[in-house]
Parts: sequence; C-alpha cells; structure tokens
Amino acid sequence: MSPSNIGTPDHPVATLDASLAPRLPTSSTTLFTAKKAKNLTFQAIGEALGRDEVAVAALFYGQAKATSADIGALAELLEIPQEQLEAELGEWPDRGRSIDLPPKDPLLYRLFEIMQNYGYAYKAVMNEKFGDGIMSAIAFSTKVEKESDEVGDWVKITLRGKW
Amino acid sequence: MSPSNIGTPDHPVATLDASLAPRLPTSSTTLFTAKKAKNLTFQAIGEALGRDEVAVAALFYGQAKATSADIGALAELLEIPQEQLEAELGEWPDRGRSIDLPPKDPLLYRLFEIMQNYGYAYKAVMNEKFGDGIMSAIAFSTKVEKESDEVGDWVKITLRGKW
Amino acid sequence: MSPSNIGTPDHPVATLDASLAPRLPTSSTTLFTAKKAKNLTFQAIGEALGRDEVAVAALFYGQAKATSADIGALAELLEIPQEQLEAELGEWPDRGRSIDLPPKDPLLYRLFEIMQNYGYAYKAVMNEKFGDGIMSAIAFSTKVEKESDEVGDWVKITLRGKW
Amino acid sequence: MSPSNIGTPDHPVATLDASLAPRLPTSSTTLFTAKKAKNLTFQAIGEALGRDEVAVAALFYGQAKATSADIGALAELLEIPQEQLEAELGEWPDRGRSIDLPPKDPLLYRLFEIMQNYGYAYKAVMNEKFGDGIMSAIAFSTKVEKESDEVGDWVKITLRGKW
Amino acid sequence: MSPSNIGTPDHPVATLDASLAPRLPTSSTTLFTAKKAKNLTFQAIGEALGRDEVAVAALFYGQAKATSADIGALAELLEIPQEQLEAELGEWPDRGRSIDLPPKDPLLYRLFEIMQNYGYAYKAVMNEKFGDGIMSAIAFSTKVEKESDEVGDWVKITLRGKW
Amino acid sequence: MSPSNIGTPDHPVATLDASLAPRLPTSSTTLFTAKKAKNLTFQAIGEALGRDEVAVAALFYGQAKATSADIGALAELLEIPQEQLEAELGEWPDRGRSIDLPPKDPLLYRLFEIMQNYGYAYKAVMNEKFGDGIMSAIAFSTKVEKESDEVGDWVKITLRGKW
Amino acid sequence: MSPSNIGTPDHPVATLDASLAPRLPTSSTTLFTAKKAKNLTFQAIGEALGRDEVAVAALFYGQAKATSADIGALAELLEIPQEQLEAELGEWPDRGRSIDLPPKDPLLYRLFEIMQNYGYAYKAVMNEKFGDGIMSAIAFSTKVEKESDEVGDWVKITLRGKW
Amino acid sequence: MSPSNIGTPDHPVATLDASLAPRLPTSSTTLFTAKKAKNLTFQAIGEALGRDEVAVAALFYGQAKATSADIGALAELLEIPQEQLEAELGEWPDRGRSIDLPPKDPLLYRLFEIMQNYGYAYKAVMNEKFGDGIMSAIAFSTKVEKESDEVGDWVKITLRGKW
Amino acid sequence: MSPSNIGTPDHPVATLDASLAPRLPTSSTTLFTAKKAKNLTFQAIGEALGRDEVAVAALFYGQAKATSADIGALAELLEIPQEQLEAELGEWPDRGRSIDLPPKDPLLYRLFEIMQNYGYAYKAVMNEKFGDGIMSAIAFSTKVEKESDEVGDWVKITLRGKW
Amino acid sequence: MSPSNIGTPDHPVATLDASLAPRLPTSSTTLFTAKKAKNLTFQAIGEALGRDEVAVAALFYGQAKATSADIGALAELLEIPQEQLEAELGEWPDRGRSIDLPPKDPLLYRLFEIMQNYGYAYKAVMNEKFGDGIMSAIAFSTKVEKESDEVGDWVKITLRGKW
Repeated sequence: MSPSNIGTPDHPVATLDASLAPRLPTSSTTLFTAKKAKNLTFQAIGEALGRDEVAVAALFYGQAKATSADIGALAELLEIPQEQLEAELGEWPDRGRSIDLPPKDPLLYRLFEIMQNYGYAYKAVMNEKFGDGIMSAIAFSTKVEKESDEVGDWVKITLRGKW
Repeated sequence: MSPSNIGTPDHPVATLDASLAPRLPTSSTTLFTAKKAKNLTFQAIGEALGRDEVAVAALFYGQAKATSADIGALAELLEIPQEQLEAELGEWPDRGRSIDLPPKDPLLYRLFEIMQNYGYAYKAVMNEKFGDGIMSAIAFSTKVEKESDEVGDWVKITLRGKW
Repeated sequence: MSPSNIGTPDHPVATLDASLAPRLPTSSTTLFTAKKAKNLTFQAIGEALGRDEVAVAALFYGQAKATSADIGALAELLEIPQEQLEAELGEWPDRGRSIDLPPKDPLLYRLFEIMQNYGYAYKAVMNEKFGDGIMSAIAFSTKVEKESDEVGDWVKITLRGKW
Repeated sequence: MSPSNIGTPDHPVATLDASLAPRLPTSSTTLFTAKKAKNLTFQAIGEALGRDEVAVAALFYGQAKATSADIGALAELLEIPQEQLEAELGEWPDRGRSIDLPPKDPLLYRLFEIMQNYGYAYKAVMNEKFGDGIMSAIAFSTKVEKESDEVGDWVKITLRGKW
Repeated sequence: MSPSNIGTPDHPVATLDASLAPRLPTSSTTLFTAKKAKNLTFQAIGEALGRDEVAVAALFYGQAKATSADIGALAELLEIPQEQLEAELGEWPDRGRSIDLPPKDPLLYRLFEIMQNYGYAYKAVMNEKFGDGIMSAIAFSTKVEKESDEVGDWVKITLRGKW
Repeated sequence: MSPSNIGTPDHPVATLDASLAPRLPTSSTTLFTAKKAKNLTFQAIGEALGRDEVAVAALFYGQAKATSADIGALAELLEIPQEQLEAELGEWPDRGRSIDLPPKDPLLYRLFEIMQNYGYAYKAVMNEKFGDGIMSAIAFSTKVEKESDEVGDWVKITLRGKW
Repeated sequence: MSPSNIGTPDHPVATLDASLAPRLPTSSTTLFTAKKAKNLTFQAIGEALGRDEVAVAALFYGQAKATSADIGALAELLEIPQEQLEAELGEWPDRGRSIDLPPKDPLLYRLFEIMQNYGYAYKAVMNEKFGDGIMSAIAFSTKVEKESDEVGDWVKITLRGKW
Repeated sequence: MSPSNIGTPDHPVATLDASLAPRLPTSSTTLFTAKKAKNLTFQAIGEALGRDEVAVAALFYGQAKATSADIGALAELLEIPQEQLEAELGEWPDRGRSIDLPPKDPLLYRLFEIMQNYGYAYKAVMNEKFGDGIMSAIAFSTKVEKESDEVGDWVKITLRGKW
Repeated sequence: MSPSNIGTPDHPVATLDASLAPRLPTSSTTLFTAKKAKNLTFQAIGEALGRDEVAVAALFYGQAKATSADIGALAELLEIPQEQLEAELGEWPDRGRSIDLPPKDPLLYRLFEIMQNYGYAYKAVMNEKFGDGIMSAIAFSTKVEKESDEVGDWVKITLRGKW
Repeated sequence: MSPSNIGTPDHPVATLDASLAPRLPTSSTTLFTAKKAKNLTFQAIGEALGRDEVAVAALFYGQAKATSADIGALAELLEIPQEQLEAELGEWPDRGRSIDLPPKDPLLYRLFEIMQNYGYAYKAVMNEKFGDGIMSAIAFSTKVEKESDEVGDWVKITLRGKW
C-alpha cells in the first residue's frame, strides 16, 4: 500500500471522537472501529471503493447514503459482516446533527469563518454571473487536495454545485 | 465592454441591500452607489483593478482592506473623490458582522449547509493528509467560476489556504 | 372588478406592518403603499400580472425576483414610475430576513407548527417514495385555495417542488 | 404486495434514527422495530389501516394519538402483543419535541425554509381571502404525493386546515 | 363618570411605554395618546364600546382586529378623525411581537411562570377531561376581575377557549 | 367510581412521558406508575385527597410540595409504601424545569401564546384596577373546568392570585 | 452640603449612559440631566426625599413607581416643571429591560455571579429556615452601605424580603 | 439538638435533587446522602464546623473549597470515611455550573430578578460611594437571617464584598 | 515624531467603526475623531499621557475611567475643549458592551479561541500554583509588544493580575 | 521532588471534574487518574517531558496533540501501558468543546472578561503596530508565571503568536 494509505504512530488514521459518537448513527462507530483496526486512511478506502475520499468520510459520519455496491465493498475491505452493515447503513441519513454552530474546533471554525466573511461576496458575484437562483448543496461534489510550494503546504478545497 | 461587465434590466448589477447598510462601514454605501451609477459588475471592476472579482466584492462589503493602489484605481474608475475614499477605506476592517448565523437567505444558507454537512469529513481528510494543524482563513484566496454542460450551469468555488 | 379584488372597511386589503418595513427592501414600502391607494387585493394584482397571488405577495415582501415584464405590469397597474420600480426591484433578493424563528404571530406560528409536528413524518414518507434526496425549495411553486363545506371554510395550501 | 410496499436493499424502508429515539416515546422504538422486521413501507401500513401514510408516520413518531382500532390493526399487522401496544400508545402525545428548530437535516430544512420565505405572503393572502383568523393545525389533514413529468419527479405536499 | 373610569395623580391611566412603541403598529401610539388626553381607563372605554376591557387593551396593543363599529365608537369617544383610525387600524394584526420571551417585567413574568409551573398539570387534566386535542387560543375570551377579602385584593383571570 | 374517575382504552388516564422523566424528581415516576396501575384520573385522586385536581397534577409533576396528610392519603390510595413516598417527596421542589420555553407541544404552546398575546393587556388593566404591584404566583390557586354548549366543549381556566 | 452629596472632577456624580437611554423611559433622561446640572449624588437626593438612595436610583432608572409626593419633591429639588415630571413619571413601570442577561459590565456581572454561585445554597438554607415558599422581590427593600477597616473598603448590600 | 437542627416530616432537611446531581461533583451526592441519613439541617452542620450555614451549603453544592479541617469535621459528623471525603473534595471547584440562567425555580428566579431590577441602581450608588471599581465576589461573605414581625416572616440576605 | 506615531496612507491610524459607535459612549466618537484629525497612533498618545497604549485604547473605547490628569492631557494633545471632555468622560464606564460574544471579527475571535482552548489548562495550572482563588481582572495590567525574528513578526500579549 | 511538584492535603493536585469527563476524550480520564495516583502537579510532569506545564495541561484536556515522544514519556512517568495511551491519544483532537461560552466558573470567566473588555483595544493597537492581519492561535505558545511582591501574588500570563 502507498504510504498515505496507512497510519503511523506520528500520523495516525482518523478515528471517531468518543464524545461525538452518541450524536451519530450506529454505523459510524462500526465503520470507524474497523477502519482503525485495519489502520486505513480515507484515501485508501476511497481508492478501494472508487469514490472520492471526502465522500467516503461523509458516509462514515452518516452524512451520505451508501449504495448496495458501497456496502458490499466496505464489508469486504473492512471485514464487517455484510448483513450487519446493510442493517446499520439502511437508515435514511438524518444529516448535519454532528456539528455545533458555530463550531468550536479551530479547524472547523476556519471553514465557517470563510463563509461568514465571504458570504455576501459570493452571493453578489454568483448573482451577477448566474442571475437569481441558488447553488445546489445536493447535486454537488467536493474534494480536498494538497499543494506544496516553497512557502509550505496549501489546502485546496473545491465545491462544485448545480445552479 | 464585454457583456458580463455591465448590467441589463433583466440581469442587473449587484447593489447593496438597504437593510444591510447600517451593519457595514460607510465605504460600502459609497462604493455600491457608484457601482450602480456606472452599472458595472464585479468582474468589470476586478479586471480594472487587476484583482479577482470575489476579492473586490469582499472589499465592497468591508471584509477586506484596500491598498493605496486599490483606492486610487477605484476612485478613478468609479469617479469618487480620492480623498473621500481614502478616509472611508482608512479604517481597519471589523469583519464578519454583516451576516447572521445561520443565514436565512437560501443561497447563503446553502454555503453554510455544505460546511455543516461536510465539516467533520473535511477535518478527517485534512488530518490524514496534513497531520495536526489548521487551514488558514487569512493566508487564503478564493474564486468563483461558471461551468456549463448539457445538464446546465455549475458553480465552482475554490478555497485555497495555507496549512 | 370582482368583489374579492378590492378592499372594504371590514375586509381591508393587506398592507405593510410599519415595524416590519425596516427589515424589507425599499420596494416593499413602495408597492404596498400603491396597493393600498388602489385598494387592490393580491388576487386582483395576480390576475393583472398573470401570476399566482402567493407569488405576487412574495414579490411584494422582497422574497422573489421580478422580471422586466412584472415590473412593467406593476408600474402600469399601480401607477408607479417605471424607472423607480426598476431601480428598487433591481436588487437581488436577500430572502427570509422578514420573519422571526419561531414566529410569534399565531397564523405564522401554525405553519411552523405543522412542519415541526410532521417534519420527520414527511421525511420518512418522502424517503420511502423517492429514495435519498431533497425536495427543492427553489424549483418550487405554491398556492393557497379556499374550500367551503357545511362545517365552514378550509384553507388548502399546496407545495410542489422538484425532487 | 405492491412493489412500493416493501423495502429493497437499495430502497430500504424508513427506520428510526438511534440518536432520535431517546426524544420519542417508547412506542416509537417498538413500532419502527416491528416495521423493519416486516420490511413494510408506510404506504403498506397505511393501506392496511385505512389511513393516509403521513398520518401513520406521524403516529409512529408519537405526534398523533392512536385509536383502539388503530392499535388493534397495528398489533395484528406488525405482530406486536396488543397489550404492550395499548400500554405504550396509551400516553397522551407530547408533540413536537423530536425536531430541532431550525432543523439541520437538508430535507427538513427545506420545509422550514419554505415557511420562512413564504410566511408573510401566505398570511397576507389568507387575510385577504378569509379575513382575520388562523388556519387550524389540529382540524387538519395533510398528504404527500409523487408526480412525474419529463423533467423528473415532483413532490406535492397538501396542507388542509379549518379556518 | 365612575371613579375607576378616570386617572388620578396617584393612580394614572395606563399609557404606552416609549421604548415599546416601535414594535407596535402606528395605531397604538394614536390610541394611547388620545386615551391619555381624555384620561380614560380601559374600563371606561370598554363600557363605551360594549366590550370587555381586556379585549379593548389587546386592541390598543395591536393584538386584536377592530370592527367598523369599534372604529366608529373609538373615533367618537377619543376624538380621533375616523378616517385616520380606519387607515391605521385597517392592517391585519401581526400579533405577539410586543413581548420578550421570557419577559423581564415582574408582573408579565409571573403570568409566564404560572404557565411554566402548571403547564404539564393543565395538559394532563385537560387530556383526562377532554381527550386528545387542544384548547383554542383564537375562539377564546378572557377577563380580569378584582376580588377583595380580609387578606387584601385578589386578581382573578379567566381564560375560556373552545376545545 | 364515577366514569370520569377511571381510564378506558379510548380515553386512558394521563401517564408520564418517558422522555420527560429524567427532568423530574423520582417521586414523579413512582406516582405516575401507581396511578396507571390503579387506572385513576386526577379527578379521582383529587376527590380522595380533598384537593383540586390541578393541584394534584402539579404535585405529581414535582411542582408542588406535599404535606404529611397528602403523603399519607396518596400512600393509601395508590398502595405505595408510605416510607418510600415520604423519602421521595421529602425534597424541596426545584420547580419549572420540566418545560421548554417556548414549549413545542401544541397544547402547551397555546397557553403561552395567550400570555404572549395578552401580556401587556393584562398588565395595563391590572395596573389600572390595582395600581403598581404584581399578582402573586405563589399565594395562588387555579382550576380547570369543562363547559359544554351547542357549539361544543369549552375549557375554562381560572387563575386567582393575591395582589 | 456634605462632601458625599456633590460631585467633584475626580469623583463625578452618576449620569445616564447614552447608549442605555433608548431602553429606558423618557423620565430617566429628564431626571439624570437635571441631576447632573445640579451635580447631586443619589445620597443627596435620597436625603431630600426621605428615601433610601438605592430606591431613588431605581426610580431614576424607571424600575420603581414614584408617588405624588416623590414627584413634587423631585420637581422642586431638581427644578424640573412639575407638570412635565407628572406626565413622564405617570407611566406604570415596565421593569427590568435595561439590563442584559448575563450582564457584561464587570460590576453588574459580579452581582449575578454571586447569585449564580450561591443560588442553590440560599434556596436550601431558606427552605430549611422557612419551609416551602419564596422570598418576595416586591414586598422588598434593599440598601448599600460602605464599611472600612484596615484592609480597605467593603460594600455591604442588604436584601430584605417578605417570605 | 435544637429544633431547627433536625428535620421533621413536615419540615424535612434539604436534600439533593436527583436531576441536578449529574451537574455536580461526586462529593455533593456523598454529602447530601449522609446529611439526609443524619437528618441534619445546614444550621446544625454549620454550628458543628464553626462556619456560616450558607458557606456550608455552598460547599455541599461544590461551589466552595473545603479545608483539611472542614473535611475532618464533616467526616466525623456525617460518618463518612475521611479518605473518601478527602479524595472527593480534593478537586478544585468548577463553580456555577449547577444553575440555569435565567433560573426557572421561582425562588431562585426572585434572586436574579432583584439583581435585574436593581442592577444599575446598585452600580450608580456604588460608583458614587466608592468611585470606579468593583465589588469582589471572592473576598466575600454572605448570610441569610430570619426576622419576624406582626406581618409575618422576612428573609434578610447580606452580601459583603471587598471593593 | 517617530514613524510609529503617525498614520500613513498604507498604514492608517485606528479609527472608530461607524456601526460600533452607537454602542459606545459619546466620548468615543469625540476622541477617535480628534485622533484621526491629528493622525496619531495610540503609541503617540500613550507616550504623551505617560500610560501604556493598550490602556489608552481601552479608555477611547469607554472601557476604562479617565483621571482628571488624563482628561487635561487629552484635551491639550487632541485640541478638544476641556469642558466637553470632562462632561463626556464624567460617566462611570458601562464596560464590555462593545463586543459580541463570540466575536465575528477574525482577530477578536482568535483571542477568544485561545481562552476557549486553554481555559481549563490555565485554571488547572493556576490552582496548582496558587491554590483556590481567582486572577483579578481589575487589579490588572496588560500590554502588547512586537517581536521579530527570521520567521517574521510575533505578537506578545502580557496579562498580569492580582491573585 | 520539589515541593511544587506534589500535592498535599490542603493543596491537592488538579484532577478531572467528573461532570466534565463526558465532553472530553477517553485519554483525559486515563491521564488525570494516573496523575492523581502519582500525586503529581503539571509542573512535575512538564519538567519530566521537557514541555511547558500549560501545554501539558492542554494535552491532558484533549486540546493538543501528543507526539510519539510525549506518549512514551507519559506512559513511563505515569505507569500507563504505552499501547493504551497510543490508542487513546491517537485521535486528532476535536478542540474547544470542554468549555461553555461564556464560562460560569469565576476563574474562567475572568479570562473571557479580559478579552471582552480589552478586545477592541488589542485590535486597534495591533492594527497600528502590525497593519492588517491576525495573530495566530496555532503558531502560538503561552505560559503562566507566579510573581510576588509586598502586595501579594500576581499571575502573569503570556500569549505569543505569529502575526
């Protein structure tokens, strides 16, 4: 496996915060526990499922609905009984309840801060470019990329939604 | 001027909502009034200033600090007395007060909804990709692009911040 | 004009609550003042514009964007200078700020109460009928009808949105 | 049974979100567990009970009171001991506590957003049509229908309340 | 006039708190100003209109809709131009916005405290007495009476609503 | 026993909502469980204790303090060991924590809505009738009565407090 | 006059914060302006009126009702036209709206902090001393005293209320 | 022991509300359980420890830090193993979390209401008496006394803090 | 004057945000207007007054009380009539109302974020170092220093308070 | 060991408040329990790890990420199985959730109060010293020192962040 696909002592794979678990569906605990046991990153799981790693992480946090194919691939990769996964992932997601608003974690806060500071600027530019309407948050895809230059590392987040 | 640089009756340029003005610095009213009189889009102003249109819109909403060069270019383009603009834009921005949290406007809400739904997914993926830390909301740039395919128009927003 | 198109002393036409005006765009005051002077109901204006009365009311409250044709018809019907109306309605709507959440007015509260009580029931039924997804609040139309039987009058509200 | 009456792996029947259960009466867990075991949709249960599927879903979520007839039919259909169901459904419902306001789930949020955006428009039109008063949220019925055209599927929600 | 119909230096008639006026319709200021000039209590006005004094006070605070007859009687009694009163009272009331929740004034707070402490007790007793349903806050009347015994004065408030 | 003193399948006696229990003292669960087992209404218990049924319900919800006599009568009527009841009811009540503000249940909400809409009207009338002061919520009694006429049933709530 | 009755440059008399005035009745501005012009402390005014200085300050902030005698004495002492004062102080006080909860001013916050930290301790001790009941905040008096010892100055606040 | 030092059936000693316990340190449950078993009032415990009863109650609620001497005396008086008490009271108190703001219990609310109504009056009088500064809530003592006259019982609370 | 004592076009002196002014005392507008006219930094004013620049800025924002000497020096330096300044600064400060909690401006937010993240860590370390007690926010001084190294500039804030 | 490195009966080491534990990661309970068993202060642990004691405390509260070296040193010093510590500390911290905003504990509140009162003063001085930008809360270090003089003890907190 490629180095960015497994965890190391100083760079462990993402797990589920215990105090967050009660606000998430049962499937989140099942999936994160198996992910930790396999020591796999979301990139590794995304590659195995043929989906973007952010979409996979959203599925782990109960924010997205898994297809039958996803469930089969996850069951095999993470060695979870398929029947259990089908039952747990069979709920229609009740999205968005995992996060406080405004969030207190500095990393999550920065994302909201960007929307807070640029909100009206985005709206004005979109109205001028597209007319009246909204950007869909459902017919929507997103990804996170890493770029590096002499200054250091940069996070590049792309949001793409139907108008 | 190119068609996307001026307003038309059915596709007017963005102006300042009257009920929002008291929560913004004086410069916002000055700039939006002149923009309306000149009938210019943010794209047109961005091209004239050599800056991205979202950055220009953020400056109009008082979320960003103008340089001397910006002030000179804006004064000339929008025919605002340079002295007045220097005084009004001479304040250090008190950012983020223009927006309610959560926002009620559907377009603004969609942007927050994305962060609400994908927040922990972004965090988990970033931690795995970059380790502990945060994405800067200051050493940061952003843009809005329009893409079209057979399904219709798509909004593509890019956020790029230093880790 | 038909009886339901004009106001009477005991059944006046809807006007704009003075304490609400500062939270709405300038056009709301202009339009409601002219509507009152002409003593017209939304049904009368809807018929003249060829649009549903609820859509017209939403436009008066600044929740919807007027087309050039709407502006022309409104200017003529309500005898407002077309230029003034074009300027005032030329803003991109900043929707939803007129209402408190939860609303305190009993009529408005009942509408929220219905969504509060039936919210999860709607979601469960829609998921079973349509699968994962959401009902659009943008590609959307709505109307209010009056039905009468021996028990009295009934309000029938229809919401129709793209899945 | 008709295809829309049973769940399939890619289109499972609605179940109860585990993190929601503590805010609902005991009967909700009993009913949803049995529904899942029988793999029945609300449409199937509604047909068996001779009631609209939304009303049935509201009863499952503890938002409506079951009659003796409902309890008998449910006990038989879902194979729950009648005595247990009578005891659990014998409480007077404490309605509305299941939902956060504003809701964070995108589908639930859209329903509130409609009321937020159209609230005053509905009120103005109703006042003009009916005079002073309110629409009852108690002497009230509601249904969800699916309509399809060349653009795709449409959700049609009807609310009907006594004035 | 009877003693309880006019104000005295130590027992003045109720007037409108200046800081409350902006949250009420224009008619409130008009009516309270005229009431003060005439030095009349709500009891006096109620007797002149043939309505309960609480209903009259609610009308002054914009919480109830005046009929043509009410407007005529008020205009004559308070010497307000009938035309002005018709225009100002011609709005459909936007109820309930005058009060903060929870209220800070001790007298208003006590009323909420009673509902807070006895709320579930009322509900349980009503359910047992009437079955499932609600007490209407619209098909509803209320009054305030003064009773005195050797201990002192007692306030007696009666609420009567359709089930 | 009179018909209104015992529960029937379609008109069960009031019980304790399971999700409310953790916010109430232990005595509430004890008392409601025994009441259900005996199938008694609050009217029946009130008659046995010689107290108004609303006061009894308030005592069950932990909003009022029981006397030794109350405890003895309750222990006998409900067949609860007197020692256990003395221990559980021996706490000084921590009142008012059972209810959310504003309440979401439609019946509870209506009670608050009345206070919200009539609050200032009550205050103005009381000030004119009694002078400055407040109505006590402690030296206070209240009752719920049922009245019927050709229109149907009416709830009559009386609040009586020392000025 | 005694030294503690007039203001000095380094120890000025209390005046009204301009940003607080809109939340208070008109009388507050009238009274504080005259107090400043006369350069009098609340102690001086209290002595002239024969009332405790805290009660006088509460009256200035619109939290207490003035009697005819108070109005006469204030008009004479502060040289305000008696008629104006009668009109302005003729309102029934709408108490408690001047303060945010929790307050942000450090001195005001300390007072709330004491109640926050000692609240349950006070309640437990009072229940044991007095039985069930409450301390009246209406049949109530309070005063502020200054005590000095070798450590420095001490504030002593006494609250005395009817049980 | 004196009569006010032990509980009686109609005047029981203060105990810990079960729903409050999870928000308090473990020591609160230990101490209140032992106090109940011994049937002692705070006055009795205060006398045994040589401290004011309010300070003792605050210690029981985890709002104050116990000294070694306090722990020894409490262990002996309440027959709690000294080791256990040392461990449980060895935490640095995390004060003030036991109470909601604003409190819903009528007795606790009255205390906050006093501060709400008299807050600015206290501040103004203190500023005039002491100059700029604050009253310490730390170098602070407080007590509750009972006074009786022909009208009935009065609560007298004294707060004394360093300026 | 030294370079850091006056403003330049690209590095203007701090002025008062117009939308903040209504929440501050009149003196803030007076002082900031004069500061701007003189084009002086807080460092320059601090040097002239012999006080730290942060203390001067706090005084400008109405968070601190000016002495007679401060008023004299400010009047002379900023050429404000001494009488006007004495009147405006003669109020006892009503501190802390200028800022929203949590603040939305990124710079202000970072300061709160530090306290949010390190709050319990500070408390634990202080308790271990000092025992039970608090750090005074009144007997307190603070300063801001600039340090530079090869990585760039660093802000160093020192808080020093009496235990 | 030095005296400030171990706890004594009257000056115990900081432990974890039981009611806070559910909001913190599992590692917090593990670490604080071991710290208590060893009776070590944060100073002692900081010296053993070669890190500042505030940073160590933040790590204990789950606000900072431990390195492999930290984990090894902690496991040895506190005699915790290294494997367990690696697993528990292997989560990416979800920071800031431990504290309420505003905090109720007096010591924590003072820290926020300082930021509330000095917030805009800090911002104005920093803008004048550094230009537009923010102080990093990530590239950041902080420490707490104890200073004593004839007046008593002083807490000195230093915050140092990259601009």
